[in-house]
Amino acid sequence: MSQPKVFEKPTGVRDYLPEAVAKLRSIELRVLECMQRWGYQQIMTPTLEYYDTVGIASSTSNNRLFKLLDNKGTMLVMRSDMTAPIARVVASLLKDKPFPVRLSYHSNVFRAIEEEAGREAEFFQTGVELVGDASPEADAEIVALAIASLKAAGVEQFKIALGHAGFLNGLFDQTLPGRHEEQTALKECLQNRDYVGFRYHLQQLHLDDEAREELESILRLRGGVEICRMADKITHADMAKESLRHLCEVWEILKAYKVDRHVMIDLTMIGNFAYYTGMIMEGYAENLGFPVLNGGRYDNLLAQFGRPAPATGFALETNRIMQVVNGGVEPEAYRVLVLYSQEKREEAIRTALELRTREGYMVETKSVSAGEAIGETGLSEGERVAYEGQLYDDIIQFTE
Amino acid sequence: MSQPKVFEKPTGVRDYLPEAVAKLRSIELRVLECMQRWGYQQIMTPTLEYYDTVGIASSTSNNRLFKLLDNKGTMLVMRSDMTAPIARVVASLLKDKPFPVRLSYHSNVFRAIEEEAGREAEFFQTGVELVGDASPEADAEIVALAIASLKAAGVEQFKIALGHAGFLNGLFDQTLPGRHEEQTALKECLQNRDYVGFRYHLQQLHLDDEAREELESILRLRGGVEICRMADKITHADMAKESLRHLCEVWEILKAYKVDRHVMIDLTMIGNFAYYTGMIMEGYAENLGFPVLNGGRYDNLLAQFGRPAPATGFALETNRIMQVVNGGVEPEAYRVLVLYSQEKREEAIRTALELRTREGYMVETKSVSAGEAIGETGLSEGERVAYEGQLYDDIIQFTE
Repeated sequence: MSQPKVFEKPTGVRDYLPEAVAKLRSIELRVLECMQRWGYQQIMTPTLEYYDTVGIASSTSNNRLFKLLDNKGTMLVMRSDMTAPIARVVASLLKDKPFPVRLSYHSNVFRAIEEEAGREAEFFQTGVELVGDASPEADAEIVALAIASLKAAGVEQFKIALGHAGFLNGLFDQTLPGRHEEQTALKECLQNRDYVGFRYHLQQLHLDDEAREELESILRLRGGVEICRMADKITHADMAKESLRHLCEVWEILKAYKVDRHVMIDLTMIGNFAYYTGMIMEGYAENLGFPVLNGGRYDNLLAQFGRPAPATGFALETNRIMQVVNGGVEPEAYRVLVLYSQEKREEAIRTALELRTREGYMVETKSVSAGEAIGETGLSEGERVAYEGQLYDDIIQFTE
Repeated sequence: MSQPKVFEKPTGVRDYLPEAVAKLRSIELRVLECMQRWGYQQIMTPTLEYYDTVGIASSTSNNRLFKLLDNKGTMLVMRSDMTAPIARVVASLLKDKPFPVRLSYHSNVFRAIEEEAGREAEFFQTGVELVGDASPEADAEIVALAIASLKAAGVEQFKIALGHAGFLNGLFDQTLPGRHEEQTALKECLQNRDYVGFRYHLQQLHLDDEAREELESILRLRGGVEICRMADKITHADMAKESLRHLCEVWEILKAYKVDRHVMIDLTMIGNFAYYTGMIMEGYAENLGFPVLNGGRYDNLLAQFGRPAPATGFALETNRIMQVVNGGVEPEAYRVLVLYSQEKREEAIRTALELRTREGYMVETKSVSAGEAIGETGLSEGERVAYEGQLYDDIIQFTE
């Protein structure tokens, strides 16, 4: 246990200097406004929740939760996502609000990390939940809004991959009935996109040729909407077939939204398989190895809070979106310095106050002795002048 | 250790439903914009900090810090204010940025509470720090900006009380030299506004009449700028007299800002006396028992992070301001529901997407079977219609 140095921060957390804040907040506000236009209103929940309620209901594995004890010895967690807290609110404070309930959020979330992982322990998510609607229309709305949100954030090149938890669950239950351990091993390979491991596990199972081929062909099920038809030929499981019908229906509705060119089908996706019950989605931006967006249907979560209801939603990984967005930030302020000597203080302050009412102005004042006046700055349009290490668009002097 | 019920939250934390979020965020954005116009740029710091650095440097007492251990066994705290984290940033990431440094923030902060206290364990502060300027101009700027921020937030009736840590420290050191315990007892009475206790402690000290009267007269030192002159006659301590000169100078500058009518002098104020070194301020709004604003000069904090510098700042207690602000929130959205039957889906979705581009519109869609159409709504201007328990400004139907 080493003593931290005075300037150090805990592992995996960061400071945001003004430029980064401007970018983050610009994304946040534009995305929340987009969500509001689609009928999603923002809520906020506490950073701390009970471990036994929201903690265990969240999709985050136990060892990645930040835990602490309150003064009665009850275990608390720092929220690891917003879906479980929102489920709690929908089932308690909003229990009389009729379905469908549409809510949005922008929030920091916390996940304990391994020392060398280089991942963030605190990061931002901006997302929505649509609770109380099990229809393909609800899933399609969530996908279309995810696309609108990425555009609002300023992400230009992206793809949304759609999968379905029911397809793989149905396929595995038919091919490997009752063999839960083997199913889990294969699912974990898919979740980690470890296709070599998937094939290796498959070989160990000593299945007949047909079953092995059926499972191996999963890995090829990525592409356009034709993938649903291909997959339908592979499987005989009712649940898998029903899942494919649902996905096809979602695709049809996305065509009405005219966003199907942003979407692909990826039936190898399994998301967090203990959590999602239906459609799953991931969003990818150009040149970024991690998803910028995660979401899907979770029809079993609300029941854990006493108000059973289907639900679907997504979260933008706002910090990753910061990395892929270039423009779109508000123009920088017009920075003015008002220098004044004691005798002209009132006039100088009056001028500063007046300039501060102008759109886009940022005005600082500084009292100087007469000797510190800097003479004519002779600035021309667009030029900036340095004063004590800072750059200003204009310096106005009130000195004797 | 009782098991929490599924709908419960930890003590002292709250959910914000859409209406409360709209109000909170409206205050947040207007205040931050005001601060930006005065040259203060927003930064963000992590929720978790090391106990041994930011934790012990903060102005929060040890038993009110939320503590947890990281996976190496090092103690972390959830930030209890933003002043210490900003001092860390100014001394590390911004160590090459020349003074003065002007920074703003809006942030949740955490303070563990006693079970029955009814205080909030997580709440919001919106504030600024001005680092590297020891002048009365800097203190006056902070006071004037505090007033501008309260106005930007929509607080109409308020008073700012100004005091000075140096006045009481100087007076006590002269009257009770070396008697630190007695000084602390008296200061604690002042901090808690326990004037009866103050008089009681004073009697126990067996001072001569002059000294006792000098100390007792502190309690009368509240009013306009004339209080500084009154106080100057009471004390002979250099430090106290110097503090009064500084306050008078701040007052003069506040007259140039034309905000002196919002300000009063209260020399009984001592703030957090281990922390503040100079001018102290508190802001009060009508009909609210707690300050809506706290601030002051803390010239010793930056040295703890390795970059000694004078500093001054304030924080708005944003949650308390929510309680006193009525209007000022953005007008509610114009809420439209688009109902459609399967056959007219494309037309309905196209209409919804078009309406969502209009300023202030919030548009939901719902697929219905032909039998669910609701007929002519016959809405007139300003009327709202209910549909499945929700109120809409308009319902547009695309049904066969």
